[in-house]
Amino acid sequence: MESSDIMPWMQERTLGQLAEYVKGRVLGDAGVKITSAATLAKAGAGDISFLSNRNYEKQLMTTKASAVIVGARDEGRGTRDEGRMVPLLVAEDPYYAFMQIMVLLHGHRQHKKTGISPRAVIADSSRIGSDCHIGELASIAEDARIGDNCIIYPGVHIAEAVQIGNDCIIYPNVVIYDGSKIGNRVIINGNTTIGEDGFGFATHKGVHYKIPQIGGVVIEDDVEIGSGCGIERGTLNDTFIGAGSKIGDLVAIGHGTRIGQHCLIVAQVGIAGSTTLGHHCVVGGQVGIVGHITVGNNVTIAAQAGVINNIQDNTVVLGSPAIEAELGRRAYSMIQYLPQMKLAIRELQNRVEKLNPPAESESSESQGQ
Amino acid sequence: MESSDIMPWMQERTLGQLAEYVKGRVLGDAGVKITSAATLAKAGAGDISFLSNRNYEKQLMTTKASAVIVGARDEGRGTRDEGRMVPLLVAEDPYYAFMQIMVLLHGHRQHKKTGISPRAVIADSSRIGSDCHIGELASIAEDARIGDNCIIYPGVHIAEAVQIGNDCIIYPNVVIYDGSKIGNRVIINGNTTIGEDGFGFATHKGVHYKIPQIGGVVIEDDVEIGSGCGIERGTLNDTFIGAGSKIGDLVAIGHGTRIGQHCLIVAQVGIAGSTTLGHHCVVGGQVGIVGHITVGNNVTIAAQAGVINNIQDNTVVLGSPAIEAELGRRAYSMIQYLPQMKLAIRELQNRVEKLNPPAESESSESQGQ
Amino acid sequence: MESSDIMPWMQERTLGQLAEYVKGRVLGDAGVKITSAATLAKAGAGDISFLSNRNYEKQLMTTKASAVIVGARDEGRGTRDEGRMVPLLVAEDPYYAFMQIMVLLHGHRQHKKTGISPRAVIADSSRIGSDCHIGELASIAEDARIGDNCIIYPGVHIAEAVQIGNDCIIYPNVVIYDGSKIGNRVIINGNTTIGEDGFGFATHKGVHYKIPQIGGVVIEDDVEIGSGCGIERGTLNDTFIGAGSKIGDLVAIGHGTRIGQHCLIVAQVGIAGSTTLGHHCVVGGQVGIVGHITVGNNVTIAAQAGVINNIQDNTVVLGSPAIEAELGRRAYSMIQYLPQMKLAIRELQNRVEKLNPPAESESSESQGQ
Repeated sequence: MESSDIMPWMQERTLGQLAEYVKGRVLGDAGVKITSAATLAKAGAGDISFLSNRNYEKQLMTTKASAVIVGARDEGRGTRDEGRMVPLLVAEDPYYAFMQIMVLLHGHRQHKKTGISPRAVIADSSRIGSDCHIGELASIAEDARIGDNCIIYPGVHIAEAVQIGNDCIIYPNVVIYDGSKIGNRVIINGNTTIGEDGFGFATHKGVHYKIPQIGGVVIEDDVEIGSGCGIERGTLNDTFIGAGSKIGDLVAIGHGTRIGQHCLIVAQVGIAGSTTLGHHCVVGGQVGIVGHITVGNNVTIAAQAGVINNIQDNTVVLGSPAIEAELGRRAYSMIQYLPQMKLAIRELQNRVEKLNPPAESESSESQGQ
Repeated sequence: MESSDIMPWMQERTLGQLAEYVKGRVLGDAGVKITSAATLAKAGAGDISFLSNRNYEKQLMTTKASAVIVGARDEGRGTRDEGRMVPLLVAEDPYYAFMQIMVLLHGHRQHKKTGISPRAVIADSSRIGSDCHIGELASIAEDARIGDNCIIYPGVHIAEAVQIGNDCIIYPNVVIYDGSKIGNRVIINGNTTIGEDGFGFATHKGVHYKIPQIGGVVIEDDVEIGSGCGIERGTLNDTFIGAGSKIGDLVAIGHGTRIGQHCLIVAQVGIAGSTTLGHHCVVGGQVGIVGHITVGNNVTIAAQAGVINNIQDNTVVLGSPAIEAELGRRAYSMIQYLPQMKLAIRELQNRVEKLNPPAESESSESQGQ
Repeated sequence: MESSDIMPWMQERTLGQLAEYVKGRVLGDAGVKITSAATLAKAGAGDISFLSNRNYEKQLMTTKASAVIVGARDEGRGTRDEGRMVPLLVAEDPYYAFMQIMVLLHGHRQHKKTGISPRAVIADSSRIGSDCHIGELASIAEDARIGDNCIIYPGVHIAEAVQIGNDCIIYPNVVIYDGSKIGNRVIINGNTTIGEDGFGFATHKGVHYKIPQIGGVVIEDDVEIGSGCGIERGTLNDTFIGAGSKIGDLVAIGHGTRIGQHCLIVAQVGIAGSTTLGHHCVVGGQVGIVGHITVGNNVTIAAQAGVINNIQDNTVVLGSPAIEAELGRRAYSMIQYLPQMKLAIRELQNRVEKLNPPAESESSESQGQ
């Protein structure tokens, strides 16, 4: 696979070579040529596809892909109607193998080497590392420090004394408030705001007085943040995003909240201030988490859940209010039976009434609405 | 109504002329002069108002409007306290008639014909159509193509190889990532981001590896998108917004998701990746829809619903988890009776206990909390 | 305390002086020197901390702070393990005292006096007050009026005929559409959009026709708005934010909605159009409020609630659908017992069945799922 270092993209490879690359094995013709990746439904000759979601299982029979990446449990599948087998690349972790092959075939996003635009406005006291590319009309304020090999896209504003590590990509119109500290290989997508004042007010006699927000924001290495997010600076302590965590679009992170390493925070999640999440948490879309609580490590929170209490390590929760998932799945899906249950209770009351009229007068209270 | 072509705004018209324009009929004085539109509560002499929401029915008695647009079912209303009838314009579709009259009287938003600002930064290799107006400090990257009669407001960034059709309006500080394809008469509001990388990671041994997002975004004709939205590019397939669909503020659309034509997606909706919505769907505010499902045509999803399964055509759903609306309305509104139901069950248990002690020991388990 | 006017920040003060300043009293050593504020967990020598949230009660025993602000109910606490008392500043409203001391010790955010950047683009017909600071690459359109002592950060776009009062702070990349009216001492955080068209369409034969949005946005004095918000202009009436109200990040406010004075609207709230909120309402994170309803004064709405009906003054509600909080807390937390309740009902049915077989045939219908 050394050749991939020389000419990594769009090069033709055999399925056998790909299998070797991802440490998988081939069922079928290992010599089939692969040039790109596509979904099962859209793939054609030369495309490799993958199956990791049950919803698409049937498409394995009809796909026109030249090969499909599957896990061991699916290696028996793939017989086409006409009896011909689509070649399979069986991998231990098929989605990971798919990622590896995507990177091999298509590469990560390439950024134009534009240098530093003369129309960017860069304060004299800022320090910009080597090989940085700073887009049109970006502005970098005094005492900001940017490492090497960073890409700052047009319209970005980096405020005073912000620190950014090496190999970061800041997409257009991102705003990073003063003093925020950002690690290496961090990616921040368009129109996201980092380090605005926390929502902190002391209410006294009906008036809300602003509390100075003297904390900052610390974002560790390898974090990716979606577009349109708002990550507040802390009141006293820094707001913190741990290394390797990935945050989707339109996520709101409150002041002083700490997100551990390697978390996945899906779009539109809101986490209030002073809450702590452990490492390797997965937080589904539109989840809300209240402030001042502790969520353990390896916690999974299903989409739209509302978390109001501490959560132990290795727990899966769902619902609003959030409860443990196994119970929650049954309980929340039972809401639809409430009308039936109510009817059943009334009927039971009628039948028991006939069997035995109530002795206590208060018994009728619990029947009304 | 030809005169409206010559001098469309702020011209005085009679109620009779307006009725003719919208193909309605007048009850009352057709000669009353109308110059503008206002709500029932705020309207005064010269204003036309409308009634299409039951909440405002009573205001028909007190409005000072010179005329009110109503549907056929409301034509019997409108007798003022003093016995005088407010003139009514009865239209088959009163809200549509209101829209027609709003456009006639007030016109759509006018945009200054500013030409191309010398302070916009426009790559030589881009192609800009005729009669485009490009605002201060906008930037348009290489190989972008913009059609005729487009308005690009200040601070917009249009990345490499973006394609935009004719008659589009791109409001300030919008970011459109490379390669996105946008049709004709598309409106995109301030601070929205189009085409950022999808939230796609393969997790392997606790580390989230970024999957290249090689799909794009395709937005068809006559789409309007609110402010602060994030519309991801696809992993493999394009993310797609069908013609005539309208999207509110702060909406997140996941990678590879397809929204059909003529949908209404209200503010703060989140739709995860690889989901397909049919045409003419109405998705209420803050709805969440999981990835990899199919929502049919003409589906209505009530605000805050959480959709986790496929939905058939012509269905109305609500709740989280979302269920069919007629059942759902009863079921979710019954949650408030749960304490009563629990009490009723306990009471029944006590009474039945007295009638007949339980034979099986496990029966008591179902009573506890 | 006159000295604070001369050199307000980072000056050493004694606990006694601070107590005098906030009209509190000291328990313990009033002579201890205080230079800054910190959380109970992080505070060290010279720091003052505070206790206003029960979650942190235990930290009073272990904090290394030089003093802690507490309310009267907590003045008995604070005995350290070694028997030494941490000095307490007992205040009637401890969080308010904390705010006062934060402002005294650390001051509000300082803004560089940069003057008016030569790279900002300011229309000749606009009027800018005295002592304004306008950042790099901001653009101010024709006929805009900005009062005195305003800070307009880089990349902001202020459209035609916008009016902004005195002492406002507009953070980077904010977009304010034409004609919006903003009072004094208003703060608007990064990437927020004010005054975009309301989401107003008349649907006719399957096509959504845009309704001109001729209303504006009025924001009164002392309002603070978070980052990434979208505040629509009105269809006919202005959208209105009352004096002293504070709005968090990523909030969506619909067209023509009126928010009263001194409200707190937490992150990711969505309020649809033409709704009225009274004064001193507190709206928790991710709450959704439908359009065309009236929420009274002093109403508190818990996080993630879904409000679909009018709410009376002084009410606390929660849940989706939202109900009165005392009932709601019990009712929503009872969803987790639904499986048990269903089982209990079935068991009762079986037992009653044995006692007395059903006379009516329809009785069995209510048992099924």
